[in-house]
Amino acid sequence: MKKVAVIMGSDSDLPVVRKATDILKQFGVPFEVRVLSAHRTPLEASEFARSARDNGFGVIICAAGMAAHLAGAFAANCSLPVIGIPVKSKYLDGVDALLSTVQMPTGMPVATVAIDGAANAALLSVQILALSDDELCAKYDEYRQKATQTVLEKDRAIQSEFAN
Amino acid sequence: MKKVAVIMGSDSDLPVVRKATDILKQFGVPFEVRVLSAHRTPLEASEFARSARDNGFGVIICAAGMAAHLAGAFAANCSLPVIGIPVKSKYLDGVDALLSTVQMPTGMPVATVAIDGAANAALLSVQILALSDDELCAKYDEYRQKATQTVLEKDRAIQSEFAN
Amino acid sequence: MKKVAVIMGSDSDLPVVRKATDILKQFGVPFEVRVLSAHRTPLEASEFARSARDNGFGVIICAAGMAAHLAGAFAANCSLPVIGIPVKSKYLDGVDALLSTVQMPTGMPVATVAIDGAANAALLSVQILALSDDELCAKYDEYRQKATQTVLEKDRAIQSEFAN
Amino acid sequence: MKKVAVIMGSDSDLPVVRKATDILKQFGVPFEVRVLSAHRTPLEASEFARSARDNGFGVIICAAGMAAHLAGAFAANCSLPVIGIPVKSKYLDGVDALLSTVQMPTGMPVATVAIDGAANAALLSVQILALSDDELCAKYDEYRQKATQTVLEKDRAIQSEFAN
Amino acid sequence: MKKVAVIMGSDSDLPVVRKATDILKQFGVPFEVRVLSAHRTPLEASEFARSARDNGFGVIICAAGMAAHLAGAFAANCSLPVIGIPVKSKYLDGVDALLSTVQMPTGMPVATVAIDGAANAALLSVQILALSDDELCAKYDEYRQKATQTVLEKDRAIQSEFAN
Amino acid sequence: MKKVAVIMGSDSDLPVVRKATDILKQFGVPFEVRVLSAHRTPLEASEFARSARDNGFGVIICAAGMAAHLAGAFAANCSLPVIGIPVKSKYLDGVDALLSTVQMPTGMPVATVAIDGAANAALLSVQILALSDDELCAKYDEYRQKATQTVLEKDRAIQSEFAN
Amino acid sequence: MKKVAVIMGSDSDLPVVRKATDILKQFGVPFEVRVLSAHRTPLEASEFARSARDNGFGVIICAAGMAAHLAGAFAANCSLPVIGIPVKSKYLDGVDALLSTVQMPTGMPVATVAIDGAANAALLSVQILALSDDELCAKYDEYRQKATQTVLEKDRAIQSEFAN
Amino acid sequence: MKKVAVIMGSDSDLPVVRKATDILKQFGVPFEVRVLSAHRTPLEASEFARSARDNGFGVIICAAGMAAHLAGAFAANCSLPVIGIPVKSKYLDGVDALLSTVQMPTGMPVATVAIDGAANAALLSVQILALSDDELCAKYDEYRQKATQTVLEKDRAIQSEFAN
Repeated sequence: MKKVAVIMGSDSDLPVVRKATDILKQFGVPFEVRVLSAHRTPLEASEFARSARDNGFGVIICAAGMAAHLAGAFAANCSLPVIGIPVKSKYLDGVDALLSTVQMPTGMPVATVAIDGAANAALLSVQILALSDDELCAKYDEYRQKATQTVLEKDRAIQSEFAN
Repeated sequence: MKKVAVIMGSDSDLPVVRKATDILKQFGVPFEVRVLSAHRTPLEASEFARSARDNGFGVIICAAGMAAHLAGAFAANCSLPVIGIPVKSKYLDGVDALLSTVQMPTGMPVATVAIDGAANAALLSVQILALSDDELCAKYDEYRQKATQTVLEKDRAIQSEFAN
Repeated sequence: MKKVAVIMGSDSDLPVVRKATDILKQFGVPFEVRVLSAHRTPLEASEFARSARDNGFGVIICAAGMAAHLAGAFAANCSLPVIGIPVKSKYLDGVDALLSTVQMPTGMPVATVAIDGAANAALLSVQILALSDDELCAKYDEYRQKATQTVLEKDRAIQSEFAN
Repeated sequence: MKKVAVIMGSDSDLPVVRKATDILKQFGVPFEVRVLSAHRTPLEASEFARSARDNGFGVIICAAGMAAHLAGAFAANCSLPVIGIPVKSKYLDGVDALLSTVQMPTGMPVATVAIDGAANAALLSVQILALSDDELCAKYDEYRQKATQTVLEKDRAIQSEFAN
Repeated sequence: MKKVAVIMGSDSDLPVVRKATDILKQFGVPFEVRVLSAHRTPLEASEFARSARDNGFGVIICAAGMAAHLAGAFAANCSLPVIGIPVKSKYLDGVDALLSTVQMPTGMPVATVAIDGAANAALLSVQILALSDDELCAKYDEYRQKATQTVLEKDRAIQSEFAN
Repeated sequence: MKKVAVIMGSDSDLPVVRKATDILKQFGVPFEVRVLSAHRTPLEASEFARSARDNGFGVIICAAGMAAHLAGAFAANCSLPVIGIPVKSKYLDGVDALLSTVQMPTGMPVATVAIDGAANAALLSVQILALSDDELCAKYDEYRQKATQTVLEKDRAIQSEFAN
Repeated sequence: MKKVAVIMGSDSDLPVVRKATDILKQFGVPFEVRVLSAHRTPLEASEFARSARDNGFGVIICAAGMAAHLAGAFAANCSLPVIGIPVKSKYLDGVDALLSTVQMPTGMPVATVAIDGAANAALLSVQILALSDDELCAKYDEYRQKATQTVLEKDRAIQSEFAN
Repeated sequence: MKKVAVIMGSDSDLPVVRKATDILKQFGVPFEVRVLSAHRTPLEASEFARSARDNGFGVIICAAGMAAHLAGAFAANCSLPVIGIPVKSKYLDGVDALLSTVQMPTGMPVATVAIDGAANAALLSVQILALSDDELCAKYDEYRQKATQTVLEKDRAIQSEFAN
């Protein structure tokens, strides 16, 4: 199976990113985690992006905050699907990261998820890899059914609570 | 090759959506275009989503404006990757559609592109399908190289203009 | 009397929603509380909405956060008045939920109240049901007069404080 | 049948408001249209609100722009359901009117619709009055079915266009 | 000397409002403090506003949060200068109150100060009353000179700190 | 009678400012109009502000766009009441000017009106000067009554239109 | 004298950028104009940045819209001062470009000017180069004095107009 | 070497400003720290600005919150490069300070950094001074290389963590 690259712009993003790696582990999707900064290590970031396909990656997930250029920098140097996680920093509630990630110019798509939406970034990469992997596809459907069951159970619990 | 479904919430979104279909044609990716509304035709939308995988689709692109629920409604009823295009309506410059599309709760990813970013939605679907299609992958790399060439030519033209 | 359905998209919304159920209890309006998600349990949500009128409901209150599609999904599947409560999540101070709830397209009204405005959602449903229920109408007027009295008492208290 | 009051804060709001009166005519709901300003005619506005129930009204629709206090002023003086239409003025794209209308304090609900969402305000009043009027209820269901048919027809048209 | 009326929409605004009354005490300006709500006690608020000039008031200060209609309601019923303090509530950081207070339509000015800017509201009322009161004018100039001295002292302190 | 100073930061603000001077003429309030920039003519602006009281001014109105520092610069150099008009420039719909004008720090009030709200700035200065001028006070009350009459006439016109 | 590099992300930014080159010409500052995209020509952009100092440049001006990564990409690859011009695109009034340019992480400054503020970007580069160039410094002071004179002349013209 | 002036509008900004002075110390750049308010000490601020060049300064850094006029006031009175740090105050997350600092009118550039971005303000001043100081230039390059090394070490640490 193709691997997922999980890149964060700063190791302070790890608490957010871990929600992505937990999902990937749960689905048995192989992944690598890196700290690569569009600004502080531009050469290493660009080199990783350019060789990602040859190195067995299928999807790139990039998490960054503030003027979040990381996903865009990967999109610029790589033709694999790039998923961007805008990370909330200390100011502006993540709006700066959201706009810096999603408002990409024509020709350079970044698949953007919600602010700090690392779990969904991982699930999206699972959906993408599942297109050519029936076993992963089945796991994903099972995951979704469990999520539905969880809501239904909570629904029954709340109905009981208010019926008393 | 798997097909791309291009769904719009209203036929008034067609001028935006056509930028997506033009790209898909250019890449020779098979696609179907539909008008299905999360609000006005919820049954038809849900039915389409539920049978999309069986009907040969690999990626769903949804374009909608205002309280843009279309991509989320497809994500809720389908395990294929869903790409959301927030469409600018008459008010708020598309911010309502952007937030309604990108701020999806955990478990329901929507790969969101820029406001009215239909071309990038199509390119993202090409990137996804190219993961298991080497010919499409080569076409995409060629497309990107042409884009680079275009910028380089404009660079030369502007250098000339200012050299005079 | 017709019942009020109080739906939340996630049981984490209960602290907000309880302000609505407290009001409904206080007015003796029959109600049911459910956890139904537009995204995680779309079928159950749609089924509830479609049969709500036949099941004796008169008003639907929906509380949801982020890309809050719940009220819209009920409006799409039900011709009863739907009241939307945008719930503040961890990010963006509820603006995402507000815009996702209030900016509904023509043909699909959602009566939106303030962010986390669950008490007002309940009071609005009381006002609606009171249109054909003189006793409820009288209770509502009495409630309003008490609210006025409370302000007048606080006014007197503050006047005393500053007169000293 | 109870009447709907359609109030606008300034006669410059009429182009927006007319979308509401057109809907009400279409459904045969009796209504009156007034220009009453929370700021310029506070006494007349307050008097209208206080006697609205006795004068046969069931729902109040208020349209106003900028610091839009009209719906709130009616809610303060009347226990009928009040629907607020935030009207886009020359600046801020209607955000000022939206927040001034929807962010009502506890105890004073205003059922807010989208910016310039006059048609939905009228449809919401129809839904409310239909709760005790089976004929109106049937008309509303028919209206909704037609809206669904319109989308389905546009869907077929677009499918044809792209099939060629 | 004419009195200043300090009105708050809810007694929960008192911590903000007290910054205004402290200033007024410091300047020896006579004032009265009231809790009057544009929504919960519209009659009392309107009556106070209509008789304010006759009752010896010269300036009205209104503090309110959320859809802050209080200052506008006073401006509508009174020809005295009305100063509006937008109060930050639990959501939106006071932006709702700011826009509801400052974006008044032509003909109904509200002199708006910063979010929670109660001290400046009081100082503005002092400036206004000082126009026809030379003693108050002198006090105000003295107050300003002290403020300048305080900054100059802090400047010297910081220069010392960084000179070490 | 004390004069009103009407200052604009750039002569491109004149179309907005003229709404203020028209009001002042209508009320017979003496005024002077100046172009003084906090940034381009800081010395002249500061000198004007410092001598304004001695030169017979009672109120200062400042109109400026973008990072609108003009009203603040006058407030810093003058103890008269300063009214700020945030002017909409080409970008951001006047939000930059609004925040730069209204969010003044403690000790430096600027009485802020709506974006481009020049007429209200003039009316506010009339209200302030009328505190010690009974004739001006009477004119203002008359002006307000006319505004009320205008709305009432429009109300009758619209009632007729819809009665047909 | 060191040269100024004026880089735009797309030749559609030229109308904005020309305001910068006009200023530079006026001051006789040598400059080069390039179209280099952080996304479409990342290698060329990075190479230009890395060799800019050796090629005689002293300041880099970058103009870009939407998710404007250009200035950040230059800052990442070059230790010269980088000035960022956020360019207004079709949506969001340039807020996306402003936040993508100004909200740079610690260690990577970008000197950001106003949205479309190309003239100021050029003037800032003149100020920087003038630090070690007395002749340029004198030209800049003269430029500023002319700007002051222009405002003073407009002030006299408006005083005349309103004196009539 | 020319000195850097580090000005704050209030000594409450010191925790933010200290990140700038720490950087300047680290680079051995001479600097002075002052508390000077555009509003409370306009004369002293203006005097400092006017004599800054003659007093040996090369760059001015200004930190201020809310309606942050400090940097603009220095730009108005001084032809040296002025760097503005928008400081987050209690409200609006620093957006008021950002817009008040960056949206300067043509002719008055302020080099704006991120909200509370004091470290970058200092680094930018180092970059500017390094243009004519090879030793400082070398120090800056070394600083940047260390920053790169730090990221690379964190990258290795995280790779190890996830390899286990």
